[in-house]
Amino acid sequence: MSTSALLSQDTIVALATSPGANGAIAVIRLSGPQAISITNRVFKGKDLAQQVSHTIHFGTIRDGETIVDEVLVSLFVAPYSYTKEDVVEISTHNSKYIIERVIQLLIREGARAANPGEFTLRAFLNGSMDLAQAEAVADLIAAENRASHEVAMNQMRGGISNKLQEMRDKLINFTALLELELDFSEEDVEFADRDQFLQLVAELRTHIRRLMDSFAYGNAIKNGVPVAIIGKPNAGKSTLLNALLDEERAIVSDIAGTTRDTIEETLNIDGITFRFIDTAGLRDTQDTIEAIGVIKAKEKVRQAKVLLYLYDEYDNTADEVIDQVKSLYFDGLKVVLVRNKIDLKGGYFENEMDKAIKSALFTAYTDTIVAISAKDPQSVQPLKNILVDVIKDTQLAGQQIITNTRHLEALQLAYGALEEVELGITSGMSGDLLAHQVRTALRHISSITGDIDIDRDILGTIFGKFCIGK
Amino acid sequence: MSTSALLSQDTIVALATSPGANGAIAVIRLSGPQAISITNRVFKGKDLAQQVSHTIHFGTIRDGETIVDEVLVSLFVAPYSYTKEDVVEISTHNSKYIIERVIQLLIREGARAANPGEFTLRAFLNGSMDLAQAEAVADLIAAENRASHEVAMNQMRGGISNKLQEMRDKLINFTALLELELDFSEEDVEFADRDQFLQLVAELRTHIRRLMDSFAYGNAIKNGVPVAIIGKPNAGKSTLLNALLDEERAIVSDIAGTTRDTIEETLNIDGITFRFIDTAGLRDTQDTIEAIGVIKAKEKVRQAKVLLYLYDEYDNTADEVIDQVKSLYFDGLKVVLVRNKIDLKGGYFENEMDKAIKSALFTAYTDTIVAISAKDPQSVQPLKNILVDVIKDTQLAGQQIITNTRHLEALQLAYGALEEVELGITSGMSGDLLAHQVRTALRHISSITGDIDIDRDILGTIFGKFCIGK
Repeated sequence: MSTSALLSQDTIVALATSPGANGAIAVIRLSGPQAISITNRVFKGKDLAQQVSHTIHFGTIRDGETIVDEVLVSLFVAPYSYTKEDVVEISTHNSKYIIERVIQLLIREGARAANPGEFTLRAFLNGSMDLAQAEAVADLIAAENRASHEVAMNQMRGGISNKLQEMRDKLINFTALLELELDFSEEDVEFADRDQFLQLVAELRTHIRRLMDSFAYGNAIKNGVPVAIIGKPNAGKSTLLNALLDEERAIVSDIAGTTRDTIEETLNIDGITFRFIDTAGLRDTQDTIEAIGVIKAKEKVRQAKVLLYLYDEYDNTADEVIDQVKSLYFDGLKVVLVRNKIDLKGGYFENEMDKAIKSALFTAYTDTIVAISAKDPQSVQPLKNILVDVIKDTQLAGQQIITNTRHLEALQLAYGALEEVELGITSGMSGDLLAHQVRTALRHISSITGDIDIDRDILGTIFGKFCIGK
Repeated sequence: MSTSALLSQDTIVALATSPGANGAIAVIRLSGPQAISITNRVFKGKDLAQQVSHTIHFGTIRDGETIVDEVLVSLFVAPYSYTKEDVVEISTHNSKYIIERVIQLLIREGARAANPGEFTLRAFLNGSMDLAQAEAVADLIAAENRASHEVAMNQMRGGISNKLQEMRDKLINFTALLELELDFSEEDVEFADRDQFLQLVAELRTHIRRLMDSFAYGNAIKNGVPVAIIGKPNAGKSTLLNALLDEERAIVSDIAGTTRDTIEETLNIDGITFRFIDTAGLRDTQDTIEAIGVIKAKEKVRQAKVLLYLYDEYDNTADEVIDQVKSLYFDGLKVVLVRNKIDLKGGYFENEMDKAIKSALFTAYTDTIVAISAKDPQSVQPLKNILVDVIKDTQLAGQQIITNTRHLEALQLAYGALEEVELGITSGMSGDLLAHQVRTALRHISSITGDIDIDRDILGTIFGKFCIGK
């Protein structure tokens, strides 16, 4: 691998488990050519240099004659380790004093304190995983729900990389044929069938487009799906939020405009995290603080993927609802109409107001309407199901999902470059210019998996986000 | 072992490493007869049942077809494990979601969530360690400095147990001889030589006395050595404390009586933790709040192991110093006389005031006097050395040190029972009564190491203090 020139020959050490008092054991990890010999110098037990890979050895860590701890040492002999280097994991008692002392001892014997993500960086540099897989390791650790865990696991196991690799190989094939043509340029032959080439590029663009489109969903499940709850003051926004969360978090009051600050609450439904944005009421007001709240509310809707528009027959007219939904709507926003206070007025069944609203808004702006009483958590249950369905609809079954802005940017650049290639083919662009355009697209695709020289600064940025010990 | 009836036959599971976000890996631990088979049912990789002890295996944890994580599984086959049962350690990515899901999976397959300390309880019940050693495991994890780490490590490795075991064996020997006499009671023989017996009991009492005496030191290094700083208002107590700590923590002011609340600060010197107690000034005062401060100060001195008595030639007379030191003194308190403000008055060298104080207090109350300027951290350095020496003096070289109140109580009871034995021998007590007294002493000694039926409630109390996963 061309990046292997970056590989350092020193041995790194770090605590691999969480620091903190509430654990029984801690694991200190070393990786590098001296991992075993350094450990051997402070370990009293079997001679670790004589042991086979994937074995565990009991003994003591000693500082001279002083026993620092009784430990278990796990050996992973290169290349059969996470980093493909010699790796030693020392399982100690979980004492801050012991951990610090053992790490200091190992440093004294020649190890170096690892930088954040340096173990995984070495795994990447040594070809144990590609860059997209390495990035997924950090996502996997950060995953807080089923959906984001699935996406990260799929990416770590090569889900995205494999398909990109396949596309890349086909492109390289065509470039080779294009470059062959150049060798025979005087004879004006075409080894690379332009029609087949066009077809391949179209396929690639479709796949890349799909990956790019998946980012909105991927980002939503990684960071939570932003849901804005909006309506007139006193429409019951805070009450609804509380019913959804089943706890009293927001301030609930009968005074219109009680909720002035936007409060974010998260709720996990069926493995997907929703970030609920509680907003101030949408009315023109003389109150400066509240006016700021209204502006914020409109801003929040711009950030939302789902809008729960809350109204009722008390305080709203159908025209009001229709006008506001239209003014708040933007392409890609999922609007759910929520008629509230059915216990007071309007009732559960479809009425004239519903009919007027539906005829004006269905299905250009929304296709979902539900009647609830926010005071009754039971009546809110169907709304939870609607939320999950909204997200499931946007998920293309079995499709690869990207969650990383770095990947999105690379795909956008590749997509643009392939568009140039397409234009070039149809306009009869010369083989050498076409080859140049294809190489540009290849570079962008390859930067995702790291099958290319990657700038050390970029690697630093990627792995700097990792925790130490990973 | 008689307590083995308590041993449960189920398989327990818990997170063994600290919870928290800042780690790369987490270790989930199982122990019990089903540990390997339960893991096997959710692990895809080699068949764990076919593998030898102390080996590590890469694979995936699966919930049906869903991959929950890529893991390393370490196998410890009974009796070659911490608990002497089959133990499996699963090293996962450090994601709260993954950890919870893996543990839930293992519970679904038949494991039970472990109670705090249950792994170590099993290690004790299965004879892997005695009770004093098991208790030392918790002390070792909690150890925050070199001295307490050394004591805990010594205890965990059997330092206290071995000597107690030896004494116990000798006592049992004599009891056997005493009981033999009872079988021949009509013949009035003495198999147990009373003089040798008296000598053994005296030896035992000396050893136990020494262990009991070590508790004060052991407790001090485990919990920190309490040091009271006392003197008249404005004697520079807070300034001294700050100079010792090298940071501005206490309120320093020129107004007499500024420091009203006792503030505890800890300082680690040469591996020993000192708890500095800053107190209100020692004067009669009309100010109620301050009067309470003075009472507290006197109370604090009662809790201290070291008293730093601070005075100066400005505000004190030799008689004042002599009277107050005498009134505060109690047996076992180490008094260090600290003449402050040498930059202003009195100077560094011994003067008339020093001579008067020394002639009155040396060496019945103290043997240490030092001249400083609390404003100059450099001049405070010798005081730090004196503190370390104070503690080192009380440490008997190579002696076993106890730190556990449960052990202290058992030793006190054993000591008392042995006193009864001694009295019995010298007063010609009958063999059966003597044997009864010896068994009482034996019971107390054995309760330290757990070589005796220990009440389940007591075990619950001891191991309940452990963290889960240990």
